Amino acid sequence: MSETAENFAFAIHARDGAARTGQIATSRGHIRTPAFMPVGTAGTVKAMYPEQVRALGADIVLGNTYHLMLRPGAERLARLGGLHRLMRWDGPILTDSGGFQVMSLSALRKIDEAGVTFRSHVDGSTHHMSPERSIEIQGLIGSDIQMQLDECVRLPAERTAIDKAMRLSLRWAERCRTAFGEQPAKALFGIVQGGDVPELRIESARALVGLDLKGYAIGGLAVGEPQAVMLAMIETVEPHLPAGKPRYLMGVGTPDDLMQAVARGIDMFDCVMPTRAGRHGLAYTRHGRINLRNARHAEDIRPLDEASSCEATSAYSRAYLHHLVRSDEILGMMLLTWSNLAYYQALMAGMRAAISEGRLADFVAETKEGWARAEAERGP
Amino acid sequence: MSETAENFAFAIHARDGAARTGQIATSRGHIRTPAFMPVGTAGTVKAMYPEQVRALGADIVLGNTYHLMLRPGAERLARLGGLHRLMRWDGPILTDSGGFQVMSLSALRKIDEAGVTFRSHVDGSTHHMSPERSIEIQGLIGSDIQMQLDECVRLPAERTAIDKAMRLSLRWAERCRTAFGEQPAKALFGIVQGGDVPELRIESARALVGLDLKGYAIGGLAVGEPQAVMLAMIETVEPHLPAGKPRYLMGVGTPDDLMQAVARGIDMFDCVMPTRAGRHGLAYTRHGRINLRNARHAEDIRPLDEASSCEATSAYSRAYLHHLVRSDEILGMMLLTWSNLAYYQALMAGMRAAISEGRLADFVAETKEGWARAEAERGP
Repeated sequence: MSETAENFAFAIHARDGAARTGQIATSRGHIRTPAFMPVGTAGTVKAMYPEQVRALGADIVLGNTYHLMLRPGAERLARLGGLHRLMRWDGPILTDSGGFQVMSLSALRKIDEAGVTFRSHVDGSTHHMSPERSIEIQGLIGSDIQMQLDECVRLPAERTAIDKAMRLSLRWAERCRTAFGEQPAKALFGIVQGGDVPELRIESARALVGLDLKGYAIGGLAVGEPQAVMLAMIETVEPHLPAGKPRYLMGVGTPDDLMQAVARGIDMFDCVMPTRAGRHGLAYTRHGRINLRNARHAEDIRPLDEASSCEATSAYSRAYLHHLVRSDEILGMMLLTWSNLAYYQALMAGMRAAISEGRLADFVAETKEGWARAEAERGP
Repeated sequence: MSETAENFAFAIHARDGAARTGQIATSRGHIRTPAFMPVGTAGTVKAMYPEQVRALGADIVLGNTYHLMLRPGAERLARLGGLHRLMRWDGPILTDSGGFQVMSLSALRKIDEAGVTFRSHVDGSTHHMSPERSIEIQGLIGSDIQMQLDECVRLPAERTAIDKAMRLSLRWAERCRTAFGEQPAKALFGIVQGGDVPELRIESARALVGLDLKGYAIGGLAVGEPQAVMLAMIETVEPHLPAGKPRYLMGVGTPDDLMQAVARGIDMFDCVMPTRAGRHGLAYTRHGRINLRNARHAEDIRPLDEASSCEATSAYSRAYLHHLVRSDEILGMMLLTWSNLAYYQALMAGMRAAISEGRLADFVAETKEGWARAEAERGP
């Protein structure tokens, strides 16, 4: 385990344009930034042993409050000694507030000033979550970085709906801050909302900064808008966030999204893409995105990438991965998830090194050239 | 990798009553007997990395000819360098003949003197498998121990049906032997049939022994009959099998089945039980069979068995396993499969040591006492 700190703190070690590399100190170890956080939805990074996740270079994983509050349940988790102990992950854990997944997964959801009321997708039971209860649950889980409850609007949306959700999220941020109180070893992050409306994004960012939180997330992106809109929103918000605090782009993204966002000053990411894609036969590699279900791989004895230090990527043939995917074998999901997370972590490590050496633009260009070259060789 | 031999050979190192311990030499390494062979149905021991299977002490795995001939296909497998290379298993592999799974999985199957005709459960295509084609396929797969094509009758069955299937299986054994020819590094095993009719079993065994094969399996058991019938059939057949050749009880069984059969002179086993149970929330342990789906485990922070050398068994809490099983998480299947195979391999290692020391009966009694004690503590 890496060095630990008593107080949550962020230090920037190098800058390259808007990009930064550094580390977040927590009582459970340091997080090297820019960081990609594998998603451990229900207390497990799907199809991975926790030791594997750590060995790939992940310093922190994400847990989903919505899933965990329903199963095993927040109070039960606390009785079991918290999520770290249950899932055997001794590094830091970030939890979302539950709000986003209430919107996307539960039935009969209702939002009002007090919070959200929803029906569980597991057993149909009704739950109410206020900003205060979200923070309470995240505390019971034992989360190191907690997120405010927010309302996230799917794009495209009417400006009035975006405006209303942004203002509600701001009021909830204040209530979450009060509920969170003083916890030097842990952090509460605010979430900038405002959809694709620049002035609302700026207003949200400024108001949140006024609350003096320990980090700021940009939420409500990667919800259906083009990449250009997402990048424009990052560029809009970035100048209004304090330089010395971590910036977290929620739910993003593809390898290219990560590089573009890092170049625009983002420090933290989470996304189900590498793990979900791995369960659906898709590999993210140095040679681009490869669909192992495709018949062209049936007799291809090459590995995904012979130069990778991940055994899933370098030692198993594409023919075998194709066979496993076509046969719906669990090992296919295990190997592709492992390989994808390895690629994501290698990409982050590559960006951190490149920023340190002031050559992020070159790194991005070389990486994209590698994808394009391999894709041209593969043909359409 | 363990020592290898040019010729397939079996050596018995110690006896304890009818039980024996020894090793089978193959060109891909030795197999310590009594041996449990994890089932790698479609070229993967489900939910396990091959390195894990090896590390648990498995010397050999089983591949299913029926599955492999349909996907990826026998000729394709040969072009890919054989199953060992494809699945990254450098130890010996045993393949069944495909006959049993044609009966249990495929539609529109038809048996005649020439062989079996059946429709694939994967894509509905029609296939014909003769005894000669079964051996050809097992050769293309690269199997080290190949099984004759046989007809297996589900019990209870009419004596005339059992008799007919046994005689057809004998004629097919001769044809398989001719097709197999002389392959010193590999082995063809015959399969004793005859259902639950002692005189048919004896006739089958004697006729097969007349073919001077390198090993003999007992087939058509664990197909619905009580354990007592299965054990009686082993006792009936055993005296008619040559002492110096390996005996393989196909498709068996529970930990208790394994102990009872070893005590009656069986050297090799395969069964989907530990792997299939692992995917359905069931653990086989030193403390008996534990259903992790049961609510009693929801807040039980004890591991399955703190004394196990398998991390899945000793390091993860029952509460976590319960949570994973209830949430249909892949990691639950991974951990329980790993733990179950570890227990099965530990049980075989325990029996081998006990036979060497002439205390198999004590080992069996102690093992069953351990299960009973834990089950009594758990209550109904």
